[in-house]
Amino acid sequence: MSAASFRALHDRLRGQVPWGTADRRGALNHITPERVAAAAGEVRLGRSVTLAAPLARSAPDNPEPGTRHMKRLPGEPSDVPGVSFAADQLVMNVHGDVDSHIDALCHVSYDGTMYNGVKPDAVTCQGASELSIEDVRNGIVGRGVLLDVPRLRGVPWLEPGDSVGAAELAAAEAAQHVRVGPGDVLFVRVGHRRRRAEHGPWDVAKSRAGLHPTAMAFLAERQVAALGSDSNSDTAPSVVEGVAFPVHVLAIQAMGVHLLDYLQFDDLVPACEAAGRWSFLCVVAPLRLPGGTGSPANPIAIL
Amino acid sequence: MSAASFRALHDRLRGQVPWGTADRRGALNHITPERVAAAAGEVRLGRSVTLAAPLARSAPDNPEPGTRHMKRLPGEPSDVPGVSFAADQLVMNVHGDVDSHIDALCHVSYDGTMYNGVKPDAVTCQGASELSIEDVRNGIVGRGVLLDVPRLRGVPWLEPGDSVGAAELAAAEAAQHVRVGPGDVLFVRVGHRRRRAEHGPWDVAKSRAGLHPTAMAFLAERQVAALGSDSNSDTAPSVVEGVAFPVHVLAIQAMGVHLLDYLQFDDLVPACEAAGRWSFLCVVAPLRLPGGTGSPANPIAIL
Amino acid sequence: MSAASFRALHDRLRGQVPWGTADRRGALNHITPERVAAAAGEVRLGRSVTLAAPLARSAPDNPEPGTRHMKRLPGEPSDVPGVSFAADQLVMNVHGDVDSHIDALCHVSYDGTMYNGVKPDAVTCQGASELSIEDVRNGIVGRGVLLDVPRLRGVPWLEPGDSVGAAELAAAEAAQHVRVGPGDVLFVRVGHRRRRAEHGPWDVAKSRAGLHPTAMAFLAERQVAALGSDSNSDTAPSVVEGVAFPVHVLAIQAMGVHLLDYLQFDDLVPACEAAGRWSFLCVVAPLRLPGGTGSPANPIAIL
Amino acid sequence: MSAASFRALHDRLRGQVPWGTADRRGALNHITPERVAAAAGEVRLGRSVTLAAPLARSAPDNPEPGTRHMKRLPGEPSDVPGVSFAADQLVMNVHGDVDSHIDALCHVSYDGTMYNGVKPDAVTCQGASELSIEDVRNGIVGRGVLLDVPRLRGVPWLEPGDSVGAAELAAAEAAQHVRVGPGDVLFVRVGHRRRRAEHGPWDVAKSRAGLHPTAMAFLAERQVAALGSDSNSDTAPSVVEGVAFPVHVLAIQAMGVHLLDYLQFDDLVPACEAAGRWSFLCVVAPLRLPGGTGSPANPIAIL
Repeated sequence: MSAASFRALHDRLRGQVPWGTADRRGALNHITPERVAAAAGEVRLGRSVTLAAPLARSAPDNPEPGTRHMKRLPGEPSDVPGVSFAADQLVMNVHGDVDSHIDALCHVSYDGTMYNGVKPDAVTCQGASELSIEDVRNGIVGRGVLLDVPRLRGVPWLEPGDSVGAAELAAAEAAQHVRVGPGDVLFVRVGHRRRRAEHGPWDVAKSRAGLHPTAMAFLAERQVAALGSDSNSDTAPSVVEGVAFPVHVLAIQAMGVHLLDYLQFDDLVPACEAAGRWSFLCVVAPLRLPGGTGSPANPIAIL
Repeated sequence: MSAASFRALHDRLRGQVPWGTADRRGALNHITPERVAAAAGEVRLGRSVTLAAPLARSAPDNPEPGTRHMKRLPGEPSDVPGVSFAADQLVMNVHGDVDSHIDALCHVSYDGTMYNGVKPDAVTCQGASELSIEDVRNGIVGRGVLLDVPRLRGVPWLEPGDSVGAAELAAAEAAQHVRVGPGDVLFVRVGHRRRRAEHGPWDVAKSRAGLHPTAMAFLAERQVAALGSDSNSDTAPSVVEGVAFPVHVLAIQAMGVHLLDYLQFDDLVPACEAAGRWSFLCVVAPLRLPGGTGSPANPIAIL
Repeated sequence: MSAASFRALHDRLRGQVPWGTADRRGALNHITPERVAAAAGEVRLGRSVTLAAPLARSAPDNPEPGTRHMKRLPGEPSDVPGVSFAADQLVMNVHGDVDSHIDALCHVSYDGTMYNGVKPDAVTCQGASELSIEDVRNGIVGRGVLLDVPRLRGVPWLEPGDSVGAAELAAAEAAQHVRVGPGDVLFVRVGHRRRRAEHGPWDVAKSRAGLHPTAMAFLAERQVAALGSDSNSDTAPSVVEGVAFPVHVLAIQAMGVHLLDYLQFDDLVPACEAAGRWSFLCVVAPLRLPGGTGSPANPIAIL
Repeated sequence: MSAASFRALHDRLRGQVPWGTADRRGALNHITPERVAAAAGEVRLGRSVTLAAPLARSAPDNPEPGTRHMKRLPGEPSDVPGVSFAADQLVMNVHGDVDSHIDALCHVSYDGTMYNGVKPDAVTCQGASELSIEDVRNGIVGRGVLLDVPRLRGVPWLEPGDSVGAAELAAAEAAQHVRVGPGDVLFVRVGHRRRRAEHGPWDVAKSRAGLHPTAMAFLAERQVAALGSDSNSDTAPSVVEGVAFPVHVLAIQAMGVHLLDYLQFDDLVPACEAAGRWSFLCVVAPLRLPGGTGSPANPIAIL
C-alpha cells in the first residue's frame, strides 16, 4: 500500500470521528448504557474465561520479560504475630512485547499528533496528562465478538506476514453466524498464540500476522468500540510503505479505537463452540495507572 | 478476643469447608454458573464503575510506592518509520500497601499451613506452586453487594481501630434492603478512603478500621464467595490476642475467601444511590502472574 | 543571594572552563596521570574505608526507596545439579534521595543548557547521548581530602539550612593542616548523617545543610576535580532567590564538577584521625550505565 | 572429573581455610595492610581503566536484561525553580547473566552449607544475614594480576567448553614475567568478551570457557584473595560429573574466594602492554546492599 493511499485512508477515517475536539474516549463512545445492558444479555451459560496469556518468560519475542519476585515467604519467620505472609513484587513493561495488554490512546503519535489532535508533548517523563489509561478506569464493558480467521480458512494459524482484510472479516461473520455491530469489542483471531505454542516463539518484530489497514474501514463502518487480537493487530513487515504500524495508527490515532494486544483465545474458542455462539459479555479492567500509556490486562469473556 | 476463642472460631470455620482436600478455589466454588447468569441480570442501567484507587504515591501508609516510568516518548525521534510511541514500565508490590489488589489463597499461612492444608513450602522464591493467583485466571464474576457501614451509623467513616461485627452487617443489609447470599462478592465500606482523602494518609499498620473476626461466621453462613473493603478488612491493632491479621487468617486460610484490599467506593456509592440498589454485576480480573501471591486489580461494578 | 548576583557568579565560573567546547569530562581534566601517581603515595596504612551508606529504607527523606528482592534461595531446590545459589534483583533510583551516588554531568540543566553548552535534548527517554555517566567509566582516581566543618566549629553537625562558605573551608584546611589542591576530590562533611542517625530522618527537601554557592569559587580557584558531601552539597531552603540547587548548577553545569551525594564519613573520620592526616587515595567506580544520568556508588578511601 | 575426585579436591581445599569458624571474609584475609600499601606502589603511569562492561541488552546470553529508565528529562518543565534535572531508575539482577558483578560468599551453597559452614537458611527472602556483600563494604583493594591465556596460546580466544588448568596459569605467569602471590586479585582472561564482540552472543549456559576445577589448588597455594574473569570462571558444560559450577563451589564455598564475573579486559590489556607490566593496583567497590548476594561492580585497575 502506498504512502499516499494510506494517508488518504487515514484522513478519511480520522475525519469521521464525530465526538468533537474535546473528546478523549474515542470509539468507547459507541458503548452506550443501552448497549452495556444489552451485552449483559449475552450471559447465558454463566461461564467466564480469560483472554490473557500468562506473563511470558524471556524469548525471541520477549527481549525484556516482566519479572515477579518474592518479598516474603510463608515458610520463613514472620514479622507479625501468629500469621505469615507470601508477597511479591512485579516489574513489567506495560506494553509487554508478548504479554496481554491494552494500549491507551496516548500510545500512538502520527504526523505530529495523537488522537483528536492532542500534541505529543502531553506525554512527558511524568506520564500522559491527556489520553492516559485513566480515561478507561471504569473498564470496557460491552458485547464481545470473536472472529476466527484460521477457522474460516481451515488452517491452524495464519503465517507470519499474512494479513486479514475487510472481506475476510465479513466472510468470518457469515461463517460464524454473527454480525459485528455498534459498540462491540471485536476480537480477531489470527492463530498467533497457537503457532507460538507449537513452533516456539520467533522474532515477531520481523514477521507477524495481523489485519490489513483497509480492514479498519470495516471497523469504522460497524462502529466497533475496541479491537483485540492474539497478535498485536498489525502485520510485520508492514504492508504500508514508510509506516511501520498502520493499524495502530488508524485504530488508536485516527479512530480512537483502543487496542488489546497479544491476547489468547485458547479458552474462548472452545467456550464459544460449546455455547454455539461467538458473542459474549466482555469486561476489560485496566489497572489504575495515572499518566499510564496502557496497562497489562486480563480481559474476561462471560458467556 | 482471646487466642483460644480465636482458635476455636478458626477451627469451626475451617471445618465447614466442604470441597475436599484437593480443592484450590475455596469459596469461589460458591459461584455456580447459575449464579453467574443470574448476576448478569443485575445489569440494568448499563453503567460500569471502578472499585480501584489510582496507584498511590509515597505516603505514611505507602512506604514502598509503586512506580511507573516512561520508556518512550511520542515527542522524541522514533526507531520505527512513520509513527512514534509512548510506552512505560511498571514496578509495584503486588500487595501494595494502599493500592487496590486481590490476595491469592497462598498469601496467608497460619499454624503451619495455608488454605486446605497446603504446606508453606509450596511457596518458594520461584513463586507459589499451589494456590497462586493463576487459580483465578478466569476472573471472579458474580453478584456484588455493597454494605455501607458509615451510612448505617450516620458518620463519614469509622475511626481507625473500630470494627464491624456480624450484627452490624445484618443491620446494614436491612437498612439498604439487600440480602447477601450464596456466591456473592461482599464489599464492606468502612470509610477508610474518605478519611484518607479528608485527613491525609496515616500509618495504617498501627490503626485501621475493619471487620471483627466474628463477622466471618456471618460470611460463612451466607456462603460469600469473596470479600472486599476500602481498608484491608482487618482492624489495627488486632482485636485478637497474639494474631495480627485475624480476618486474613479466617478468610483466606480457613475459609478460602479471597480478599480484595484497599478498594475505593467513591464511584460506586453514588451509582448505587442513583440505581436505588446495592447489588450489581461484579468482575475482578487479576493479571495472569504464574506463581503470584496476588495481583493489582481494578474490580468493575456493572449496574 | 539575589538572582543577579548568582547569575554573575555563574557566568564567571563558567567562563573559566578552559577545556574547549568539545570537552565532556569537566573538572576531571584536573586529574592528570602525574596527580594519580602522586595520589597513590597517600596510601601508607594500607587501610580502605567505604564512603557510602547502606541502601536506605523508606523514610521521610526517602519516599521512593530502592528495593532488593531475592530471586533464588540457597535453601530451596536448585535447577542445576550439585549446587544451589542465592541471587537477587535490585530496583533503585540512580539519584536515590538518600542513597550514596554520583551525578553525571547531564544531571543538571540551567538556563537552557547542560555543561559546556550541551542542549537538554541530548537527554531523551533512551538516556543521555552526551555527558552520561559512561564518561566516567574509568573511575575517578585521585587524591581525596576531607574537610570536617562540624569539627572546626566544635559541634556534632550543622543544623539544616546552615551553609558553609569559602572562608570556612579555608579555616578547616588550616585547622586540619591540609591544603586542597589541583585535581583533588574534595569531601565536605556537614554532619548530615550523624544528625540523621541521632535524630532520625527528616524531610531534607525542606531543610538541609550544605555549601554556600560562593564556596564554589574556592573550588574553582583550587581546581578541585570533584565534590562529595554527606548531604547533597546544596542547602535547603536555597540561599539563592529563584534557583533551587545553586551548588548543583555551579558545580555540574558551570564548572563540570561531578557531585557525590549523600556519602557517609563515619568510617573515614576515625581512619583519618588514626592516620593523623586528612588526605588519602580516593577511588570512585560508577556502574557502567550507558546513557545514565549518574550511578549508585561506593567511593573508597585508601589511607 | 568424577564426583568423587571433585569431592576430595573440595574437602582438601576447604580443609585449608585457616581463619576459624567465625570468619566471614574468606580469602580477603590474605589482603593485609602491608599488601595494600605495597599494591599502591604498582601505580606508576597514573592511569586507570575499567574492568566492567556496559550494562548489556537482551541477548541469547542475557535473558533478563537490566533496564534503566528515565524519571526526569532536563528538557521538560521542572518542579523546582531555576534548574531542571535528568534522573533515572535502575532495575537489574545483581548476578546479571552477562553484566559485570561480584558474588558475595552467600551466593553458593554446596552439600548443605555455604562458606565456612554457614547454613543456607541464613539467606531468606529478606536477604542474607551472614556472608552478604556488606562484608565487602570497604572494597577489595590490592594488587591485581592479569593472566592472558589466549595470548599464551596465540589465539584470539578460548573456544566455549575449553578450560584452563594450573599448569597453563603457571605458563602464562612465565610468559608474562609476573608471579601471582599472597593477597593478589587474580584476573584470568579467556577471551570470552572478544569472541562475543566478534561472533555475537550465544547461550553461555550451554557452552563457556573457564577454569578447570584443579586450577583452584593453584589459587589456594598462591593465596589468591579474589578471582575475576571475562567469563564467569566456570566452564560449560561442567567438567565435573554431577556438579554444575565446580569453580564457583571451590572458590566461594570452599575457599572463600570472591568471584568477579563477566568482566572485560579490552581496556586493561593494551594498558598493561603499554606499561610493560601485568600487575596493577585494583579496587573493587561493591554497592552497599544490606543482605545482598553480590553487587554489580566496575572494578578499576590503576597502573
